[in-house]
Amino acid sequence: MLVNGELDDSISAADRGLLYGDGVFRTLRVTGGQPLHWQRHYRKLQQDCAALALPCPDASLLLEELHRLIASGTDGVAKIIVTRGAGVRGYAPPGNPIPTRILALTPCPPYPGESYTQGVKLRICDLRLSHQPRLAGVKHLNRLENVLAAAEWDDPGIAEGLLLDMGDNVIEGTRSNLFMVSGGALLTPDLSRCGVAGVQRERVLEWAAAHGAPCRIAQFGPGELRAADEIFLVNSIIGLWPVRELLDRSWSYFPFAMQVQEWLSHAPD
Amino acid sequence: MLVNGELDDSISAADRGLLYGDGVFRTLRVTGGQPLHWQRHYRKLQQDCAALALPCPDASLLLEELHRLIASGTDGVAKIIVTRGAGVRGYAPPGNPIPTRILALTPCPPYPGESYTQGVKLRICDLRLSHQPRLAGVKHLNRLENVLAAAEWDDPGIAEGLLLDMGDNVIEGTRSNLFMVSGGALLTPDLSRCGVAGVQRERVLEWAAAHGAPCRIAQFGPGELRAADEIFLVNSIIGLWPVRELLDRSWSYFPFAMQVQEWLSHAPD
Repeated sequence: MLVNGELDDSISAADRGLLYGDGVFRTLRVTGGQPLHWQRHYRKLQQDCAALALPCPDASLLLEELHRLIASGTDGVAKIIVTRGAGVRGYAPPGNPIPTRILALTPCPPYPGESYTQGVKLRICDLRLSHQPRLAGVKHLNRLENVLAAAEWDDPGIAEGLLLDMGDNVIEGTRSNLFMVSGGALLTPDLSRCGVAGVQRERVLEWAAAHGAPCRIAQFGPGELRAADEIFLVNSIIGLWPVRELLDRSWSYFPFAMQVQEWLSHAPD
Repeated sequence: MLVNGELDDSISAADRGLLYGDGVFRTLRVTGGQPLHWQRHYRKLQQDCAALALPCPDASLLLEELHRLIASGTDGVAKIIVTRGAGVRGYAPPGNPIPTRILALTPCPPYPGESYTQGVKLRICDLRLSHQPRLAGVKHLNRLENVLAAAEWDDPGIAEGLLLDMGDNVIEGTRSNLFMVSGGALLTPDLSRCGVAGVQRERVLEWAAAHGAPCRIAQFGPGELRAADEIFLVNSIIGLWPVRELLDRSWSYFPFAMQVQEWLSHAPD
């Protein structure tokens, strides 16, 4: 782990990242010693920092530090956290914050191979996401809703929890974005009021545009999702998982999802 | 500063308090070497921990550690943070978390004396609080809404920002609870969907009950607030500030607020 470029595994207990969750983060795959889709992740980091009016560390600095953590040929998961640093007491951000940057590398989680080919089981969480347009889409450090939702089940047979918002619209998984295929078109939830807009979601949207696949950002509920031809989940660590079970429905054939999965794992960017 | 009972000013960069804001906190006054209203603060800490299914450290342990930080006769502000500690990667809380406790003592902020006698200026923030009943009332570490709201102004003549919710209901200040006096009755916002229910708010509600003062937890907007006979703000650090200015209105006479202020600062509990 590197904290502000130093080999360290601790931060100041006066850091605003701890006190208020005043910061943002990214989680990305490292394969063969290379961080995947680095430019996309950095662009999101910049956007998310901007949403909090937080100075974003330079790409070259972060990339240099990432490579100090990554041994040649390594596979793993890299996490980058940027906080507003330590400051005087009180919520008001300091005028000239000195951001804290934390980089960590951990092994890849051992996901079962059949999750990719046969799909995963999805459950609907009781927790409903609140609407906060000022923070929607941003991968910030205020993640208690995700924590509460992920605490709802411990059956290892359930791979992910589906999050609805206060209006019972489908938004995302606790740690993934969601797509459904319906009548030949791809649909993914509108994230303008809540949710995290991830890099893989962006890649799928671009894939659809590049391949002329009808695709819409839309508002839909669990009933429409249940009636979908296919459902799939994406994030930067898992890649793409088709959904094989939700509520009383099951799916075993995911031609659309498999096509996107193939593309996601092989397209250079 | 004490971290888990040791003189330290750093915490693990893998602490869930940093990663997810997965924790709660209290801020309380220390006067003449004694933490004020300790039992109330501890009760709230317990309730807030329970809301997150987080084990709450024993009162005796926290109090012993507080007294190690507080020299005899000291005045100051004590902050207690309890997080879910470090754990494996992912939002799901570990089954047997080892909470992190952080205690810090800082000097009292130098609040001007006239804030207490002549009142303070209050402005309405643009940011609207989101509705999350699962977290409402709880003083947790997900405080980005407060940070964004407090960043909206830097005029030192404005003492506090008023937070409305998505439905334009009055909720609280960025770091205080709010009361208004209208037609001889005391009203304070309903905090069942957002906001933090502080110890001083609880004390005022109990004062009203004990003194037979008509008092209601209610839903009201800025228009009704503007028309109030008096407005006042409370928290455990400032005590009570009457409001002298809001929107185009000003107040200079606060008999009700002054009576509550007198009681709050002298009642033993």
